[in-house]
Amino acid sequence: MIVQKYKDMLSGKSVIRQLSEFATARGAEIGYENVFDYSLGNPSVPVPQEFTDVMIDMLQNKNPMELHGYSPSLGITSVRAAIADSLKERFGIPYTADHIFMASGAAGALAHAFRLVTEPGDEILTFAPFFPEYNPYVNLTGAVLKIVPPNTADFQINFEAFEEMVNEKTMAVLINTPNNPSGIVYSTETIQKLAEVLTRKSEEYGHDIFVISDEPYREIVFEGVEAPCVSAFYDNTIMCYSFSKSLSLPGERIGYVAINPACKEAETMVVMCGQISRGTGHNCPPSIIQLAVSKVLDKTADLSVYETNMNLIYNELMDLGFTCVKPGGTFYIFPKALEEDAKVFCQKALKYDLILVPADSFGCPGYFRMAYCIDTEKVKRSLVALRKFVETEYPNR
Amino acid sequence: MIVQKYKDMLSGKSVIRQLSEFATARGAEIGYENVFDYSLGNPSVPVPQEFTDVMIDMLQNKNPMELHGYSPSLGITSVRAAIADSLKERFGIPYTADHIFMASGAAGALAHAFRLVTEPGDEILTFAPFFPEYNPYVNLTGAVLKIVPPNTADFQINFEAFEEMVNEKTMAVLINTPNNPSGIVYSTETIQKLAEVLTRKSEEYGHDIFVISDEPYREIVFEGVEAPCVSAFYDNTIMCYSFSKSLSLPGERIGYVAINPACKEAETMVVMCGQISRGTGHNCPPSIIQLAVSKVLDKTADLSVYETNMNLIYNELMDLGFTCVKPGGTFYIFPKALEEDAKVFCQKALKYDLILVPADSFGCPGYFRMAYCIDTEKVKRSLVALRKFVETEYPNR
Repeated sequence: MIVQKYKDMLSGKSVIRQLSEFATARGAEIGYENVFDYSLGNPSVPVPQEFTDVMIDMLQNKNPMELHGYSPSLGITSVRAAIADSLKERFGIPYTADHIFMASGAAGALAHAFRLVTEPGDEILTFAPFFPEYNPYVNLTGAVLKIVPPNTADFQINFEAFEEMVNEKTMAVLINTPNNPSGIVYSTETIQKLAEVLTRKSEEYGHDIFVISDEPYREIVFEGVEAPCVSAFYDNTIMCYSFSKSLSLPGERIGYVAINPACKEAETMVVMCGQISRGTGHNCPPSIIQLAVSKVLDKTADLSVYETNMNLIYNELMDLGFTCVKPGGTFYIFPKALEEDAKVFCQKALKYDLILVPADSFGCPGYFRMAYCIDTEKVKRSLVALRKFVETEYPNR
Repeated sequence: MIVQKYKDMLSGKSVIRQLSEFATARGAEIGYENVFDYSLGNPSVPVPQEFTDVMIDMLQNKNPMELHGYSPSLGITSVRAAIADSLKERFGIPYTADHIFMASGAAGALAHAFRLVTEPGDEILTFAPFFPEYNPYVNLTGAVLKIVPPNTADFQINFEAFEEMVNEKTMAVLINTPNNPSGIVYSTETIQKLAEVLTRKSEEYGHDIFVISDEPYREIVFEGVEAPCVSAFYDNTIMCYSFSKSLSLPGERIGYVAINPACKEAETMVVMCGQISRGTGHNCPPSIIQLAVSKVLDKTADLSVYETNMNLIYNELMDLGFTCVKPGGTFYIFPKALEEDAKVFCQKALKYDLILVPADSFGCPGYFRMAYCIDTEKVKRSLVALRKFVETEYPNR
């Protein structure tokens, strides 16, 4: 018998995917260059040349059995050491290779983090707006994801709601800063306050509450914004990183889990990740990609285009009278729709070939997300369509 | 709190890993070329040059955003289609892209197969001798792996024991032919009989019983041996394939699930794999490796060395009076130890720098495994050590 649980999931098609499919179909009609597709968070700048050079060099010169051989289940030791060194130098936290577990992208890293600290029935809290894939990621482990409602004033944490929801079953808090979908970077004050609440609640409940910090957008932070390192503020932090966005290689599935050395059993948690992999079928990211990224840890793709795009869009949104918190990073912006139901708003936008994503599934109804990882030239053309859309459909604003 | 289940697993260190670590340590003392390390199933021949050429060509000439971009969650469509075409042509089964799910190696493929057809508490049967990682692979899903005792006469299936063990809770049977650790290829007669039993039992219990066919050694079959395609004999077959051994790139984590088109809900099962991935953090094998293997589907590494090694070892074992079924494929051979406790036997062999793996954890006490994926020259030298070991330790045979 095939398992009903997974079969049932097939009917709940993601809004983002539906919109992306619409964009592709519409592109076939009118040319994709004329579809202003803000649906998908796919990096729009090339991988750094150094990565390509390292790959080619290894393919040409390295012993192929070594290059393509099995990686130890925790990751290639030299790669783990290089990442630890880089994190240590950058954030002043004494990571060593023993605190790093190589994972197949952020999804792989999170799958291990959840299993490290929750049993079925335990709760993980996250904060709206949030990446909707967190729902299946967590719930399919048997743990339960609970969503703390948003603080729409600035999209920092809604601490009042958080303190009401945290309870004895809360084993972890999942945060994502810089944030998809809001583009907001949590302030030092926010992270300090979160650490304070969690320390207090851990004591109250007599068990550790972990922070699982999902950081794929860490390197995309805009001018004048400071992005504090979460692990520096709270000992029980499990950092989940992906190189997908910083190096523009989301398809190559490479990231890591970094356990804060200040965790009581940090090294044990890393080797436990290797055991978790045996159940999930994980078995490490590809060897060649592990080796290649370890040689370009101080590089990123040219990420400046995202800030250029953000400024263009933000200024136009302000000019059109939208309510919107200015993003501090990522390639997302998260304005309030011009009518109560963002789904209706985004549906109307399709007439102008604007693909906007309503934020109901992000836990923030009434808002929408634009993923501006597209060419700046196209952003500029899209703003003409956006103005036309707003002026035609909402003339009395 | 960190999860005890995974922490507890840390104490049960695998015998293979311990022996492999011993070999590495001993190699540091006397030179690794003098350690006859038969512990690990790591391919010992290079990847085909065509694979390397394709990789370099793509890195040099393909749009990097396309090359390194997100793969659809079921795999890159053109890659799935190429694999389906290749399977169709080779085995005469009408696979299309809709029957193929790209997975990160055999471990990734199996993780999806188990979740497709079992709920917690359901049983999967497998046949000794078996790959010991099947235990955590299955048991960590919540299903239960049951081991059918071996037929040591020829290491085909022990049908008598099988018919006693199959029951209402049996949702799948996991087979591995050519087999790790025995090196045996299941005969057409064995597979036909298995299909007959499963068809009868499926009817009796009123639910499908699936065959999960783990086939990473499919391409390593020796002269005169026929390796029948399991899917051709039983409709409800989930084929799990890995390119690790055929292309000698185990570290690159690339394989697939192929659902027999004759399965009632074959296409549904493939899209269900995409849902399962959301829970396991799988998210597809690396894009560049998917694209590269799809261009070399008709190639293999030069696998002939394994047959050369097998013949050398088999003939010497026969000459020394061992009991051993001649392997039909893989790079394993599985003789009976010269005393009842194979652990003691293998411990004694260490004095001669022979690293042999006792088969207790393979469900077949009294036997041992040799993984002869090493240089032929080293095999020849090892046989001198083997003779000395046997003649010294077991002089009265």
